[in-house]
Amino acid sequence: MENTKSKEHIEKHFTGSDLIRDVVIGMSDGLTVPFALAAGLSGSVSATNVVVIAGIAEIAAGSIAMGLGGYLAARTDREHYASELERERREIVEVPEREKEEVAEILRSWGLREPDINSAVEAISENPDRWVDFMMKHELGLEEPEPKRARNSSLTIGLSYIVGGLIPLSPYMFIHQSRTALMTSVIATLIALFFFGYVKGRFTGSKPFKSAWQTTLVGGLAAGIAFFVAKIIS
Amino acid sequence: MENTKSKEHIEKHFTGSDLIRDVVIGMSDGLTVPFALAAGLSGSVSATNVVVIAGIAEIAAGSIAMGLGGYLAARTDREHYASELERERREIVEVPEREKEEVAEILRSWGLREPDINSAVEAISENPDRWVDFMMKHELGLEEPEPKRARNSSLTIGLSYIVGGLIPLSPYMFIHQSRTALMTSVIATLIALFFFGYVKGRFTGSKPFKSAWQTTLVGGLAAGIAFFVAKIIS
Repeated sequence: MENTKSKEHIEKHFTGSDLIRDVVIGMSDGLTVPFALAAGLSGSVSATNVVVIAGIAEIAAGSIAMGLGGYLAARTDREHYASELERERREIVEVPEREKEEVAEILRSWGLREPDINSAVEAISENPDRWVDFMMKHELGLEEPEPKRARNSSLTIGLSYIVGGLIPLSPYMFIHQSRTALMTSVIATLIALFFFGYVKGRFTGSKPFKSAWQTTLVGGLAAGIAFFVAKIIS
Repeated sequence: MENTKSKEHIEKHFTGSDLIRDVVIGMSDGLTVPFALAAGLSGSVSATNVVVIAGIAEIAAGSIAMGLGGYLAARTDREHYASELERERREIVEVPEREKEEVAEILRSWGLREPDINSAVEAISENPDRWVDFMMKHELGLEEPEPKRARNSSLTIGLSYIVGGLIPLSPYMFIHQSRTALMTSVIATLIALFFFGYVKGRFTGSKPFKSAWQTTLVGGLAAGIAFFVAKIIS
């Protein structure tokens, strides 16, 4: 039952709304560090406006590191794939026998018998696109990156980080009594972490309640430790 | 030439020191957000001790989110793999004909011809371990997670985040004049980002100088934007 469910989730993950998934990942990540930073600071700095300034600076920094960093990493992956693809295309023309032997080795490792291997190698290498695709996947272990998907995904996650980060921060904007602001932020954020952790679990193929607890635990622990560390050094 | 190099890098990536790679990733990530946060705050809050407290709170929060978050995610991946593995093992016993047809479909998609497919399916399904392994890789696209590797990796990255974060922060600990501390932090951190970005590129298979520039760019932009956003709202 559980297994059937998790398989459905994987399929949902690929066919379902990737946008919602990215938004939820970005928001649940965005909740964690700004929440912990604000909680940590509020234990040592009584002026809530300093907490707000630090929180906004963190959200700006974190969303750029995540969004732009992820965007550039996706571009690098794509370029790496393209350069390996070009190289395989050249090799099947320049050293076809060696490349055929590589296909044969892969098939051999799966337990195919020699006569079958020869004819399978001929079938695969008949079509250059299929041959190159086979080498990319099974020799190099590289899947073709989806051109726009990975970049858009990073940018969506980065933007959602901003929205997520505003949840723990907003109490400090409206409540000027530091202790009350902290308490409101802790309650609101733990509820939000649980909720987004649950939805994140549904969209990434893990068990929703487990994901909910883990997301809440990481956020809560990070905030608790940041609070005590800041108290000690201040 | 470039291609040969990048292939060597992939191999180096898998055979080389994974520990050094994790340390470098954690340190270059740790440099970014604490750097940007400190720079952002120093533009609006003149007391360097507030910058230090906020920076330490961020480092505590970020390293727990990365280390513990990564650790739990790795554990979830492993459990997910184990549950899918068990399911495939059951299916090859309970519905062997359907599972054989799935193997045949995969081989067909690679261009193998019908008579070869039948005998390849028989060869693969002769050994249950190989059969299950084949289904895991090619039907579900799941690679077996290395048991300790992923967890240790997250913890190493989390710890290195702390060390990386102390680089941009240390000038604020020793220099009490806010502007001088900021300048020292900017120069030291940009140099460190470039250096760790270069080493990160070598260990992750991308071009070292490109990785160096990108890491520096993301960190520099994050810090610049955090600085201006904090100035505007303060």
